[in-house]
Amino acid sequence: MSESVKKVVLAYSGGLDTSVILRWLQDTYNCEVVTFTADLGQGEDVEPAREKAKMLGIKEVYVEDLREEFVRDYVFPMFRANALYEGCYLLGTSIARPLISKRQIEIAAETGADAVSHGATGKGNDQVRFELSYYALQPDIKIIAPWREWDLTSRTKLIEFAEQHQIPIAKDKRGEAPFSVDANLLHSSSEGKVLEDPWDAPEEYVFQRTVSPEQAPDKATSIEIDFEHGDPVAIDGERLSPASLLTKLNELGGANGIGRLDMVENRFVGMKNRGVYETPGGTIMHHAHRAMESLTLDRGMAHLKDEMMPRYAELIYNGFWFSPEREMMQQAIDFSQRNVTGTVRMKLYKGNVTCTGRKAERSLYSEDIVTFEEGSGTYDHKDAAGFIKLNALRLRLNKMLQG
Amino acid sequence: MSESVKKVVLAYSGGLDTSVILRWLQDTYNCEVVTFTADLGQGEDVEPAREKAKMLGIKEVYVEDLREEFVRDYVFPMFRANALYEGCYLLGTSIARPLISKRQIEIAAETGADAVSHGATGKGNDQVRFELSYYALQPDIKIIAPWREWDLTSRTKLIEFAEQHQIPIAKDKRGEAPFSVDANLLHSSSEGKVLEDPWDAPEEYVFQRTVSPEQAPDKATSIEIDFEHGDPVAIDGERLSPASLLTKLNELGGANGIGRLDMVENRFVGMKNRGVYETPGGTIMHHAHRAMESLTLDRGMAHLKDEMMPRYAELIYNGFWFSPEREMMQQAIDFSQRNVTGTVRMKLYKGNVTCTGRKAERSLYSEDIVTFEEGSGTYDHKDAAGFIKLNALRLRLNKMLQG
Amino acid sequence: MSESVKKVVLAYSGGLDTSVILRWLQDTYNCEVVTFTADLGQGEDVEPAREKAKMLGIKEVYVEDLREEFVRDYVFPMFRANALYEGCYLLGTSIARPLISKRQIEIAAETGADAVSHGATGKGNDQVRFELSYYALQPDIKIIAPWREWDLTSRTKLIEFAEQHQIPIAKDKRGEAPFSVDANLLHSSSEGKVLEDPWDAPEEYVFQRTVSPEQAPDKATSIEIDFEHGDPVAIDGERLSPASLLTKLNELGGANGIGRLDMVENRFVGMKNRGVYETPGGTIMHHAHRAMESLTLDRGMAHLKDEMMPRYAELIYNGFWFSPEREMMQQAIDFSQRNVTGTVRMKLYKGNVTCTGRKAERSLYSEDIVTFEEGSGTYDHKDAAGFIKLNALRLRLNKMLQG
Amino acid sequence: MSESVKKVVLAYSGGLDTSVILRWLQDTYNCEVVTFTADLGQGEDVEPAREKAKMLGIKEVYVEDLREEFVRDYVFPMFRANALYEGCYLLGTSIARPLISKRQIEIAAETGADAVSHGATGKGNDQVRFELSYYALQPDIKIIAPWREWDLTSRTKLIEFAEQHQIPIAKDKRGEAPFSVDANLLHSSSEGKVLEDPWDAPEEYVFQRTVSPEQAPDKATSIEIDFEHGDPVAIDGERLSPASLLTKLNELGGANGIGRLDMVENRFVGMKNRGVYETPGGTIMHHAHRAMESLTLDRGMAHLKDEMMPRYAELIYNGFWFSPEREMMQQAIDFSQRNVTGTVRMKLYKGNVTCTGRKAERSLYSEDIVTFEEGSGTYDHKDAAGFIKLNALRLRLNKMLQG
Repeated sequence: MSESVKKVVLAYSGGLDTSVILRWLQDTYNCEVVTFTADLGQGEDVEPAREKAKMLGIKEVYVEDLREEFVRDYVFPMFRANALYEGCYLLGTSIARPLISKRQIEIAAETGADAVSHGATGKGNDQVRFELSYYALQPDIKIIAPWREWDLTSRTKLIEFAEQHQIPIAKDKRGEAPFSVDANLLHSSSEGKVLEDPWDAPEEYVFQRTVSPEQAPDKATSIEIDFEHGDPVAIDGERLSPASLLTKLNELGGANGIGRLDMVENRFVGMKNRGVYETPGGTIMHHAHRAMESLTLDRGMAHLKDEMMPRYAELIYNGFWFSPEREMMQQAIDFSQRNVTGTVRMKLYKGNVTCTGRKAERSLYSEDIVTFEEGSGTYDHKDAAGFIKLNALRLRLNKMLQG
Repeated sequence: MSESVKKVVLAYSGGLDTSVILRWLQDTYNCEVVTFTADLGQGEDVEPAREKAKMLGIKEVYVEDLREEFVRDYVFPMFRANALYEGCYLLGTSIARPLISKRQIEIAAETGADAVSHGATGKGNDQVRFELSYYALQPDIKIIAPWREWDLTSRTKLIEFAEQHQIPIAKDKRGEAPFSVDANLLHSSSEGKVLEDPWDAPEEYVFQRTVSPEQAPDKATSIEIDFEHGDPVAIDGERLSPASLLTKLNELGGANGIGRLDMVENRFVGMKNRGVYETPGGTIMHHAHRAMESLTLDRGMAHLKDEMMPRYAELIYNGFWFSPEREMMQQAIDFSQRNVTGTVRMKLYKGNVTCTGRKAERSLYSEDIVTFEEGSGTYDHKDAAGFIKLNALRLRLNKMLQG
Repeated sequence: MSESVKKVVLAYSGGLDTSVILRWLQDTYNCEVVTFTADLGQGEDVEPAREKAKMLGIKEVYVEDLREEFVRDYVFPMFRANALYEGCYLLGTSIARPLISKRQIEIAAETGADAVSHGATGKGNDQVRFELSYYALQPDIKIIAPWREWDLTSRTKLIEFAEQHQIPIAKDKRGEAPFSVDANLLHSSSEGKVLEDPWDAPEEYVFQRTVSPEQAPDKATSIEIDFEHGDPVAIDGERLSPASLLTKLNELGGANGIGRLDMVENRFVGMKNRGVYETPGGTIMHHAHRAMESLTLDRGMAHLKDEMMPRYAELIYNGFWFSPEREMMQQAIDFSQRNVTGTVRMKLYKGNVTCTGRKAERSLYSEDIVTFEEGSGTYDHKDAAGFIKLNALRLRLNKMLQG
Repeated sequence: MSESVKKVVLAYSGGLDTSVILRWLQDTYNCEVVTFTADLGQGEDVEPAREKAKMLGIKEVYVEDLREEFVRDYVFPMFRANALYEGCYLLGTSIARPLISKRQIEIAAETGADAVSHGATGKGNDQVRFELSYYALQPDIKIIAPWREWDLTSRTKLIEFAEQHQIPIAKDKRGEAPFSVDANLLHSSSEGKVLEDPWDAPEEYVFQRTVSPEQAPDKATSIEIDFEHGDPVAIDGERLSPASLLTKLNELGGANGIGRLDMVENRFVGMKNRGVYETPGGTIMHHAHRAMESLTLDRGMAHLKDEMMPRYAELIYNGFWFSPEREMMQQAIDFSQRNVTGTVRMKLYKGNVTCTGRKAERSLYSEDIVTFEEGSGTYDHKDAAGFIKLNALRLRLNKMLQG
């Protein structure tokens, strides 16, 4: 607490932790607090946060439904890249942080605040994601990260502080949660405590939005997804807004046991971490997008995308959404999607999501050319001899001259 | 047929097509033919090929069981890289070609042959894979690719040729197959004819070595796989040779509906192709290897591997196994595996393969460090502030100075 | 000559070789020929080509000055990427082919021609560059590559053909040239014959547009180049069109012995080749652009550009200018240049081109921040401790846990 | 100063700054100090450092000549990669830090020290390079970085401290140096103060080991360098040890005005910096190595190296020499060098270093194949047609089907 702060915009969930932070900010910095609560589809009503903030004496309370913006401007662009962190993770938490940060910075400008604050701990990636976004958008903003500053280093101390300051504590929040949760329209993640031993599988009670494959229906569900320029726009012919479409896919995926992931990943801050993720709709979307691209995307662009993808995913994971290089890569990715338009049929069954059909007006797959007999004249199989011989030339020279 | 040929080593399956090729080579080039039939785990007895070759008058007949070499020296090195072509394909056909080619070239040296021949068509990738391997290993070898040379351009002509030359034709081979198949211990692939419309899902009869997820047992199977330096060495504590281990995984995967893939891919020769693949054991192995790496592989190496992987997979897909650059990448990949040793537990259930536990003596995951309270002293969460601020510095300067 | 051709657009230089091709096309294909001669700054008058074409009976003769389009739409975009093939080569020949091809295809459309033809040999890269461009722009165009088709395989036969068909032969063209030359506004290249032994340095007479460093003035020349969004726009304050600017830089560079390159490179067709290049203006431009970027380009974008560059350069070298993946990369590259605006001072002296100053309104270099004493408050050197410790964390864990 | 320290190994130059640090460490930590002074070819006698350390009461004084190890195990491996940071910088400072760090850690083990210390400031890259190396080699080492800890934040305070503690001050060290210097056998660098405005060219007095091109001899010097497996081993036929060879090249380069670089670069800690570098021998070595590779290195490996290089250089620049991923890349790079053996002739003239010849027993360049007439039979120019057509296939399909 080296700086003087006049007014701070706090990312406020309405829960115990951020309520304690709210009060701690007031006490410690003797400053005004503006609360900002976003509905990103985390599945909890955000209105109680408004009431609670008012009850705690806050005058400027922002509660906003950002679901459409979240899916349209953050989730969809990222899915155009087929982004997977470390081969598996669909980046559900990572992609939500930049939007929250952006709105906090905008609200700071609107309300004349000189600082922002968040409730992320000092060991995780989220503090990095929040703060890199803050700085990128408002270089001279002051940032308060209570978990790195205060001495409420145990659950007991936190509860004591809450009690001392008349902050209401829900009954089930008195003890420590058996694991911590983050959720938004794209995914929910669970980590910590009971999940810490990577040799132990997560118990069924950890999962929030998916049934297990075992409990999913015995009959497959088949859906058709329409894509336009790389983004899904309709399910079974029904055009849906971005957030509505993802909501629908979440229901379908969740009911069919799709999108669970239990992984050990490498955090930006240097340690390995074990996370359990549920991304039902995102998992369907990912596979559907790849299938759509398989028909409509040129090989040169497809392979370039595959090579760029790990870096792109790493940037988002590490919190560099608002970085020049992420935007630079996005230009290339978006350009590649101009003809990624058509329809895929996906089968959902007990944890499996399988493409069972893809079609597109501008498909690059040509039955004419692949049929064994000579077709359109485009392909003469005698050409293959020359193709092979020139590709082989350097290999032959290597062997002859260098053995 | 511009060149004179004395003796040719033919990759001979014993089937109708390569039997016709055998005879056509004798007729056209007036040369001796040596047959080479490899057991790569394709699931068919190779001995009949020996009899048939003798019956067709061949004096030098090679029949060899290459399954262990195939898995140990080709499949395992490739799996160390987590190679996936175009995000999905485990390269089951691509990886078998180099070994067949290598043995043909060695047999050519042993028998004094000046040419080699294969039965791959003029439109596919396999001709490229065979011939690049031949040339890389023996730069002055003569290559005969009958499908690019002869005029037996229809099934009818092929059958006629067989009849004229007393080549026995199995009853079910008179008509055209509804699709073509390639198989080895790693996978079977199906393509062509009934599979050509990518909007139509493959019928159940297309699949050879997996039951459908629907038909798989209602109860999950759990296995433990031990890894040493990146390679699987034991299942449920039983040490197995490479080929035995993969055979066992194939049984387990096949019975649980694991490893089916229906995809449209980009061929090296420039067209898109639709293929249906079954890689039951390989699919388990791929996920198990990633899980093992998640615990034991450093982030820097893991991310570098992920970035190199698409190129590595492309090289193998395109037929460049015996290229200097593939070997060069392999050095890096193999180096990274020195501590990829430990055990993973995999759950197999109706098409799903899920890691439910991983452990390793040299695990890089440290519960001490990830626990929320301060542990080993290695991590001080105040360090995060400086880490974030220096990572943010250029983003702040960008915004301040370039807006 | 398997196809019937009605009318062919020939890339025609007016020299002996393409005049022979012109006549050979008429004879062999019994077709009309349209000639196309482009002024790309090769330093020869193009009007004689018009006369000669008419003399040879051509009715549709195109002669065009494409210098501005060449520099603006081909050279400048490529220089934004800092493209160097194999670490050295500024791609002077490679970048000219796509433009010639594009105009041939357009002229074919205008004149109702069904074919195009070029005078590149069967061993080089240029045939590939011409033909990939033709096909990319007009997939069903017929392509005639005389050097791969005819039997005029020696100089003697070529001369004979010319004599038989009353094609005028300049005296100095009777014998074989001691090396072959390609030239345009960006560079001239020399290769073959006397240059074939890579142990021998090229004789002074090989060079066309540069004096040797030894013969260059003893006094340095200093110039200032203004850049806007990555492109040079003025020299010493004088605004110049793209072609005029490059012409001016060529004069300056040529007079100061700048831009010679003698290298062995890897051709796309599989062999190594020795080429001698002169790119005086381009060499200045390349170094000036890097210097401009050093001040104005963010590190994240700069490093991403450096990593993409070898692929980008390879694509252009191999003839894939009109490929989706080159265009995709260009999106990213062009985006990065939005603030690459400012001025650099370059010193030209006996082969050396050195940046002696750079400035920009939107410079990202901040003296405030680099000065040793604390300046703007943006940088607190205590932050470095945390930055280092978190960057070191995984290295420490590796050592502790894997030794 | 939060930790108790018993004994610290200080990287000690014998100069004023590190002498102040020495005394400050004793005072502040009340600990024993071990000094370590390395001769890395910085061009100053290291023996005075021994005397001065003793005079300051140090009992354990290490003075070592590390020149051969430096060049053999650090410089040469890096040059095998053709490493250039941001397209220009030969990494002369970056590559020296890991070796110093490694010896400090070894000496700590020998002397039972629990801490190490260095004299790098809190704003530069060197602190990162030292400390990442310390941590990577000895994860629980204590690190003392005085410049980030103490309050001697101005030259005046430093001098005062020295005077108070009877530390001798050379006359010319009383005032602030007009710029700061780092030097070793590979290069010298100058930065700060008079060099801070990037619009001003460095004055001639800044340069330490090179004459200006203008002052260099009017007559070129030609030398031949032999390479074995990627490393230079002899000059003009005289076999030299690594350090002797680089020393010789430094003399030759320095006398001919070679290896000056004035650049603005991006520091790892997030700011841009202006540095002036002199790397005379290294510049010759870099160009000679590329020329040697041009003849002996396969295209596939060469292009892969070029694509990996920027990351490799960035790792070294950022201080990650002792990281798993650098070692992993080194495996690939070293493998590629097995046939990089032969001789190159380099011409040195007034700042220019030009290859004028290269030869190798295992050269991959084949005059037979590049000659225009058909030679060895390896290359049939009719093959080019098929090669082009299959490379063009997807471009044609794209145009036809996606327009």
